[in-house]
Amino acid sequence: MLVEFGNTRVLCAASVTEGVPRWRAGSGLGWVTAEYAMLPSATHTRGDRESVKGKIGGRTHEISRLIGRSLRACIDLAALGENTIVIDCDVIQADGGTRTAAITGAYVALADAITWLDAAGRLADPKPLSCSVSAVSVGVIDGRVRLDLPYEEDSRAEVDMNVVATDAGTLVEVQGTGEGATFARSTLDQMLDLALAGCAELSRLQSEALALPYPGKLPEPSPKGKRSAAKS
Amino acid sequence: MLVEFGNTRVLCAASVTEGVPRWRAGSGLGWVTAEYAMLPSATHTRGDRESVKGKIGGRTHEISRLIGRSLRACIDLAALGENTIVIDCDVIQADGGTRTAAITGAYVALADAITWLDAAGRLADPKPLSCSVSAVSVGVIDGRVRLDLPYEEDSRAEVDMNVVATDAGTLVEVQGTGEGATFARSTLDQMLDLALAGCAELSRLQSEALALPYPGKLPEPSPKGKRSAAKS
Amino acid sequence: MLVEFGNTRVLCAASVTEGVPRWRAGSGLGWVTAEYAMLPSATHTRGDRESVKGKIGGRTHEISRLIGRSLRACIDLAALGENTIVIDCDVIQADGGTRTAAITGAYVALADAITWLDAAGRLADPKPLSCSVSAVSVGVIDGRVRLDLPYEEDSRAEVDMNVVATDAGTLVEVQGTGEGATFARSTLDQMLDLALAGCAELSRLQSEALALPYPGKLPEPSPKGKRSAAKS
Amino acid sequence: MLVEFGNTRVLCAASVTEGVPRWRAGSGLGWVTAEYAMLPSATHTRGDRESVKGKIGGRTHEISRLIGRSLRACIDLAALGENTIVIDCDVIQADGGTRTAAITGAYVALADAITWLDAAGRLADPKPLSCSVSAVSVGVIDGRVRLDLPYEEDSRAEVDMNVVATDAGTLVEVQGTGEGATFARSTLDQMLDLALAGCAELSRLQSEALALPYPGKLPEPSPKGKRSAAKS
Amino acid sequence: MLVEFGNTRVLCAASVTEGVPRWRAGSGLGWVTAEYAMLPSATHTRGDRESVKGKIGGRTHEISRLIGRSLRACIDLAALGENTIVIDCDVIQADGGTRTAAITGAYVALADAITWLDAAGRLADPKPLSCSVSAVSVGVIDGRVRLDLPYEEDSRAEVDMNVVATDAGTLVEVQGTGEGATFARSTLDQMLDLALAGCAELSRLQSEALALPYPGKLPEPSPKGKRSAAKS
Amino acid sequence: MLVEFGNTRVLCAASVTEGVPRWRAGSGLGWVTAEYAMLPSATHTRGDRESVKGKIGGRTHEISRLIGRSLRACIDLAALGENTIVIDCDVIQADGGTRTAAITGAYVALADAITWLDAAGRLADPKPLSCSVSAVSVGVIDGRVRLDLPYEEDSRAEVDMNVVATDAGTLVEVQGTGEGATFARSTLDQMLDLALAGCAELSRLQSEALALPYPGKLPEPSPKGKRSAAKS
Repeated sequence: MLVEFGNTRVLCAASVTEGVPRWRAGSGLGWVTAEYAMLPSATHTRGDRESVKGKIGGRTHEISRLIGRSLRACIDLAALGENTIVIDCDVIQADGGTRTAAITGAYVALADAITWLDAAGRLADPKPLSCSVSAVSVGVIDGRVRLDLPYEEDSRAEVDMNVVATDAGTLVEVQGTGEGATFARSTLDQMLDLALAGCAELSRLQSEALALPYPGKLPEPSPKGKRSAAKS
Repeated sequence: MLVEFGNTRVLCAASVTEGVPRWRAGSGLGWVTAEYAMLPSATHTRGDRESVKGKIGGRTHEISRLIGRSLRACIDLAALGENTIVIDCDVIQADGGTRTAAITGAYVALADAITWLDAAGRLADPKPLSCSVSAVSVGVIDGRVRLDLPYEEDSRAEVDMNVVATDAGTLVEVQGTGEGATFARSTLDQMLDLALAGCAELSRLQSEALALPYPGKLPEPSPKGKRSAAKS
Repeated sequence: MLVEFGNTRVLCAASVTEGVPRWRAGSGLGWVTAEYAMLPSATHTRGDRESVKGKIGGRTHEISRLIGRSLRACIDLAALGENTIVIDCDVIQADGGTRTAAITGAYVALADAITWLDAAGRLADPKPLSCSVSAVSVGVIDGRVRLDLPYEEDSRAEVDMNVVATDAGTLVEVQGTGEGATFARSTLDQMLDLALAGCAELSRLQSEALALPYPGKLPEPSPKGKRSAAKS
Repeated sequence: MLVEFGNTRVLCAASVTEGVPRWRAGSGLGWVTAEYAMLPSATHTRGDRESVKGKIGGRTHEISRLIGRSLRACIDLAALGENTIVIDCDVIQADGGTRTAAITGAYVALADAITWLDAAGRLADPKPLSCSVSAVSVGVIDGRVRLDLPYEEDSRAEVDMNVVATDAGTLVEVQGTGEGATFARSTLDQMLDLALAGCAELSRLQSEALALPYPGKLPEPSPKGKRSAAKS
Repeated sequence: MLVEFGNTRVLCAASVTEGVPRWRAGSGLGWVTAEYAMLPSATHTRGDRESVKGKIGGRTHEISRLIGRSLRACIDLAALGENTIVIDCDVIQADGGTRTAAITGAYVALADAITWLDAAGRLADPKPLSCSVSAVSVGVIDGRVRLDLPYEEDSRAEVDMNVVATDAGTLVEVQGTGEGATFARSTLDQMLDLALAGCAELSRLQSEALALPYPGKLPEPSPKGKRSAAKS
Repeated sequence: MLVEFGNTRVLCAASVTEGVPRWRAGSGLGWVTAEYAMLPSATHTRGDRESVKGKIGGRTHEISRLIGRSLRACIDLAALGENTIVIDCDVIQADGGTRTAAITGAYVALADAITWLDAAGRLADPKPLSCSVSAVSVGVIDGRVRLDLPYEEDSRAEVDMNVVATDAGTLVEVQGTGEGATFARSTLDQMLDLALAGCAELSRLQSEALALPYPGKLPEPSPKGKRSAAKS
């Protein structure tokens, strides 16, 4: 599926494979992981491909790990059974907030994959998802707390915070950073208020997206379960 | 721009930078190159990311080089002036013929970039493009010559040929391969007939696409010249 | 200098070089960065060397970037002048909280390097450090909020949070994570209270360490400014 | 064995191992692959070693794959049985046409390895080779079609084509390229005429080489089957 | 354990794992290997991390192999049984002679690990160590043969030799090098005399270190057998 | 030139380039370095290509460095002027003693390159070579000291020593190793006697090879100075 947050556009696709990585084989638990990447043409000035450079940068690693952790917070891996779900989040166009857009879209792709696994009778237990997960970024710019800054504002924000939350209003991950600045505890509180309100709104939009019928061209479970891709 | 050939979908975007790679600086000539990549979710069975593997596979290298060579056949690099154009071809969905779809789309992105450079007054001479370039794949399946096989048929073709041609009907590149089989000279001739007819039809479609007005949101030259991206 | 937090021991050393990385040359600003690594023998089960594996893991990248960002929050890079300070944090023995121990020790190494640069007359302005920086980890274990968990407890914590704060009580970085679990806003508040109290205590210990006279063997500025190393 | 085409000299050696790569184990089919490389001293200006650069270039990949595909077109992998033959083609001196010389020499090394496997009783069926394979390059220079251009002429050719053909006159691979130029269909036809005549002559020379008795020093099957190497 | 030779300080730690690398599994023999590395802050001018550069330099490889070979000369691998001992030698501060200090310290760590394995009843035969091993460097400076040069003198030595010897006075490894110079056989003889005397003294110090009681905090065999680490 | 020691065959080629690596530019000194590699088909059991593995092994590094150091011992780099000579030593067939064969052949290639540089008037001073350099391996097998063991014997030698010496009888490098064994000082003395006699004989053969006239096809200095290559 294609997520759009302002001018930021991220393609999120879930791939399902039977079995789990070797280090957890035989545990009865499934595995959910994510890979985040940015197309070279996604940014204003073309970035180099990480495949050409021959290594993945720290930022890419960091975001892939964040998305994976966030998704694992809402799923019961025992109920998933020994299946692996990889969520690919490829940024097509970047204008700030790509990691939070990716998490929000990744949850929808994950939920679709779970529905497909359920239809195919491959879950160990029904309903492995205990809640939904969404994410927003909040920043302080010119002393004011603001939601989802576009790139131009984000790059001059004094504080930058990413919040991942569930539809139950609990927190999954909070990452607040002051590059070259510090911030008061009261500012943190304000940012959290705004972020939790933003996540609540996103949860509502995720439900709506998931309530739509499956697209016509994938009427039955395919080996890969990419029904979500067909939505884009 | 987004090119679709059957179920194959490739995102082609041109990025313009002033100056040329060090090895040709001061020559007065410009440079055109291409990078081809496939998203892990583009294929039926998820592929590993080349950035994660830490190296680019032979197939990716081969196709990137083919696209670059094909584009350089239709452009006068002296007229381009010391500018570099990189065309990124990212396969979103793969169902056979990704390299030929990429070349065909890459030409449109290149032509758009040239129009933009011209409007910005940055060309050494007007009209650096001497012709248009498009590509098709032809295959022999069950003894019959066929155009643009989808993946399922392509993978059992006896002979597989990619042809890159110009709108003047001349050839840019011919690559015919029999994996585990050989083919007669007469079969080659038949494949070429079919391929040249296919390329002529694509040239016509390219002209139509380029005749469309620019999208509203990029009314004036931006630093990066990604007018083509806005079309997708 | 050698930092010890319980059984965790981290060697922190500052290296000063004249000039800055190319991308910021000529700006008049200095640069502070950090590299974190773990000796293979630091953990209970020997880890593989990242140099042998040929690439740096995501976790190492993430922590190195966190340390660098934290230090840059307390220094005026214009006052530093075009000098580069690299802080190496090498974990000799790991028992939980290595990243927070590293930040706390790195600040002392940085402050020492600044004193040395000042004595050598190489600062653009005196007093580039606007505050001190220290860090603690807090976790929730069996439903109770606790400071600085050792590894055995840390690995079964429900929530794990790292807080970087200044001696003025403001925040530099807040990273709270629930791997496979979520947490209430009220829990976050409790963790922050405990973390800020912990950081205040560490600030006091940092002042004491920095108040000690320089060790006898480095009585005058050496080209590398490693006075801190001599303390270990 | 050592192949010489003008000043181009390529060392071709076959290595036989029992078993096949994991991805085709148990299929009953054998595997033939090739690795092409150029010694740094082979070219006029010394090239960097790919092992020192830490990665294989696109050109090397492309040629290794071409040689492997060409050889697999003439062999029945079921008759080969679960054996793997790797053909190493190392260019000692390069003066144009290294890839076609490599294919032509690689076939002789392959045929020698097959004879050795047969003598050792390790083939699943006798006579796995259905035909012989050889290759030539043709180019257009100053408007004239020419066979096997040396490097100096090759580098200024308008069109460059490599043709792999069998002793039965059928085609295995056709790769025609116009770098910075295009060519007419009639030119392609002329190049093919000349190339097929050239391959017929090479097939004759290959038969002669294979008809020579084995060299004295390897009178019985060695574990590695490098009888061909002894000919050089 | 921490070895100090003048200002050179090397941390040597043994890690024991059950089983051996795949290539020697089932042989009944154990395996002893070593990894040498230098912390970036160990040298006067900070060195780049090999993990950041993505590859291990030739010098590091060379020294790791030398340490491993030296240790294997004094141990009966059949008596060790199918256990693997990895000795990590990390240079904390470098002032000449790091490789010989590493060998000398590595032997003590190895002997400790053997004592621990014996106490845990995991040796195939008691007493796998047939002798002790120590190493010194000798150099010729201004025409005079000298033992264990510090870095400043070492870097201008005309000849540099490393000698590894046993407590029985036999030789394990002799490496003498004249960078940009040559040396007479009689000089070699003088260097050997001095080196063997130096090794005899080191053997005595090693025995003394090993005769000390185990430190209090590791009274019983731990899974990893790092009693030596506790001595530092 | 092609060096043969028994069944060991090494191709040694010198490449000359104007200028020196950046780290010694402007010093007025030249640079001599070497790269050693083994073709995959050189050994009895095919080895993997280091370019395919993506990194150079420790053994390759070690030998390349040894050859370079040995050559630099016999040349006055100031007299060479700011020229760089790279000696490539590629092992075509390996049967023990490849590193010593490589050094011995590399000296001849180096001497040829010097003669060519002199003829081209590009030396800072005439006669930069102060002596010749050759190398042999000696081993102890079944208690007896032997010169230049072939692979089969070498692999079961109790002690293995490589000696690099000049035609003046002085030593350049001595590397004696007992893998899994130790050796007496008297054995070392015997090995040195035999090695020096072997080097004296090789020096004589080197002079003879260098006294031969240049081959006809390279009558005048070419840009690359590969006269030696033409001898093979």
